[in-house]
Amino acid sequence: MDILEKCMISLEEVKKNKPLVHNITNYVTVNDCANIILAIGGSPIMADEIQEVEEMVSIASSLVINMGTLNERTVSSMLKAGKKANELKKPVIFDPVGVGAGPYRNRIAEKLLQEIQFTVIRGNMSEIKSLSGLAVRTKGVDSIADESGGVEAAMGFAARVNCVAAVTGKTDIITDGKKVCLIDNGHPILTGVTGTGCMTTALVGTYCGAVNDYLVAASAGVMTMGLAGELAQKTLSKEEGIGTFRIRLFDAIYNLTTETIRKEGKIRVE
Amino acid sequence: MDILEKCMISLEEVKKNKPLVHNITNYVTVNDCANIILAIGGSPIMADEIQEVEEMVSIASSLVINMGTLNERTVSSMLKAGKKANELKKPVIFDPVGVGAGPYRNRIAEKLLQEIQFTVIRGNMSEIKSLSGLAVRTKGVDSIADESGGVEAAMGFAARVNCVAAVTGKTDIITDGKKVCLIDNGHPILTGVTGTGCMTTALVGTYCGAVNDYLVAASAGVMTMGLAGELAQKTLSKEEGIGTFRIRLFDAIYNLTTETIRKEGKIRVE
Amino acid sequence: MDILEKCMISLEEVKKNKPLVHNITNYVTVNDCANIILAIGGSPIMADEIQEVEEMVSIASSLVINMGTLNERTVSSMLKAGKKANELKKPVIFDPVGVGAGPYRNRIAEKLLQEIQFTVIRGNMSEIKSLSGLAVRTKGVDSIADESGGVEAAMGFAARVNCVAAVTGKTDIITDGKKVCLIDNGHPILTGVTGTGCMTTALVGTYCGAVNDYLVAASAGVMTMGLAGELAQKTLSKEEGIGTFRIRLFDAIYNLTTETIRKEGKIRVE
Repeated sequence: MDILEKCMISLEEVKKNKPLVHNITNYVTVNDCANIILAIGGSPIMADEIQEVEEMVSIASSLVINMGTLNERTVSSMLKAGKKANELKKPVIFDPVGVGAGPYRNRIAEKLLQEIQFTVIRGNMSEIKSLSGLAVRTKGVDSIADESGGVEAAMGFAARVNCVAAVTGKTDIITDGKKVCLIDNGHPILTGVTGTGCMTTALVGTYCGAVNDYLVAASAGVMTMGLAGELAQKTLSKEEGIGTFRIRLFDAIYNLTTETIRKEGKIRVE
Repeated sequence: MDILEKCMISLEEVKKNKPLVHNITNYVTVNDCANIILAIGGSPIMADEIQEVEEMVSIASSLVINMGTLNERTVSSMLKAGKKANELKKPVIFDPVGVGAGPYRNRIAEKLLQEIQFTVIRGNMSEIKSLSGLAVRTKGVDSIADESGGVEAAMGFAARVNCVAAVTGKTDIITDGKKVCLIDNGHPILTGVTGTGCMTTALVGTYCGAVNDYLVAASAGVMTMGLAGELAQKTLSKEEGIGTFRIRLFDAIYNLTTETIRKEGKIRVE
Repeated sequence: MDILEKCMISLEEVKKNKPLVHNITNYVTVNDCANIILAIGGSPIMADEIQEVEEMVSIASSLVINMGTLNERTVSSMLKAGKKANELKKPVIFDPVGVGAGPYRNRIAEKLLQEIQFTVIRGNMSEIKSLSGLAVRTKGVDSIADESGGVEAAMGFAARVNCVAAVTGKTDIITDGKKVCLIDNGHPILTGVTGTGCMTTALVGTYCGAVNDYLVAASAGVMTMGLAGELAQKTLSKEEGIGTFRIRLFDAIYNLTTETIRKEGKIRVE
């Protein structure tokens, strides 16, 4: 079975299992993340109070940690929830939003990496290189860095951290340090809307809650956003822009079928 | 005057009085709640700092407490605000989001119930049964439980807590423990969007800020969401999904008239 | 060069410079603010942890402080960030959401005014008068006060506080205490959506990050929202309402051109 077929089956698994996805995330894109999880067929839990995160991890199928608008209170909750998920052997997905933008954010990302064994880490190349210690400075949180040497950087990072690295960009790179999946879906307008990165991570978290092969789950999540972005962009008239695009993105994910993945999916293993 | 006519008059009262609705709510659906209050004709205040909640309750027509993403800081604010509203005899509406999902959330819901006299409590059957001590476990926050014995459970709960219970589901049950209103509006797609429960509660809060008969106000709020959901769903083409649905839901509420309530409202008293 | 031409050039500067705008804002409209900054051509940072706000100010082009859902934690961050921006001579824009609604909010607004030198303050007339000590009580946060004597009040306030005052209403008043720009764009439906004030402030912050003449930058920001509101409203059919309006507002800002400003801009210097 090739990777495209595995992604198609992953979508069916999500629809069948309706995984419960626990998110500790930022207050900017949290509504979009909840709706995207519902749109693909999962069930979101948003909860970050330290006294209840372990309880939520216990009933969830996966945990997504997103450090967008981190603060001391939620960082403690992230650490507690992540350790609990590790103990219960549930997948933990990390979105290191804006890592590299400053020393504080770097320290927190490092601490999370040290104390939690992540299953998948999803970021742009600048964030992954930053995490990987390659001293790349991001310009804010939505930057796109030079991607030369991207595959090698992603593989090295995945191997070092022992996780699946999902690096989104013009060509998405998903790797466990050995195998590499490359995805050529997507559209530049996705970078013109806040939260498309966070939503991609939420989708990865949803697939990881339904599928045990995390390289496949991460690939399916990233490809889902890319496909939906393409489909949504194609519907836009000249007068429409990011307002309408966002709405159509949710529609496209809600209506995504295995048939669309088969026809439009541009994924290959290298 | 029958209940349908009372609901029609309630809508007129909201438009006329433009009630100021104070919300202490979660950061997932807060924007939707503010916009839904505006759409129906009210005016939202979102404020949760403990030092100012009493001031906000004092100028508001009603208070909505939603425990979606509760934390220690906001729970203290909820308690302070709720007591102040009780003291000033202003209606307090409670949405026990996710109660039953874990011990912490249950403890907080119990504490709120003990210390605040709620006017209306809006939840799904699983949440209401949980609150009612019937040991029903929810699967996350958007669960739909078995509704057998629903009317009796709702009536018993309303009587015990001395409030109006507004239980949303396939058939909505609104009861003060003696009278029961049943509503058959709505559409299953409403459960595919985050925040439709919270928004229903916000609508109930808006009606309660304009209408003194809280059984009627709660019924009007619940029916408003059901009607808007039906109308919005009917407009969807095959390519559209929850993205477009959410937008049309706001449009439908914004354009809701007493005439629509008369024609499409499916409410009866039992 | 007249003010309209200056606004047109300001839009070009935003597109060219892609200013990084740091926002410490409320959790109600934060997503809209991030998307509006992206729509006009800037790049948003949303960060409010006290340990990292100085770092974010250091890499940003401007700082926006919005006190919508203020709390003790974020007020400390606002003070620290504002002082850092003053030290680095970066523009600081203030949105005193709901000032006048209660003593706590007034105290915080006063403290922020005392400790931070603001570049632009954007509010409605009631908020500006409140800030100005004119004891106007707001009814919630979306109130529209009597605007008699508005120009004088705005000029006096701007002179006293040594900032640009951007007072939005039927006719927008932007003044540095000496010159006054009056704008007649906009549409009443803008007040029927939550966050249009916050988004206007975010737009002002974006222009201030790209243009050194802050009277022009504030005027361009305010006019951008007014123009987009007009354009979006014109597209609405009878069945559409604030749901669709919000989406078209983002589309209109995303597609705004200098040509539209030239044709539709209604701004004059008095």
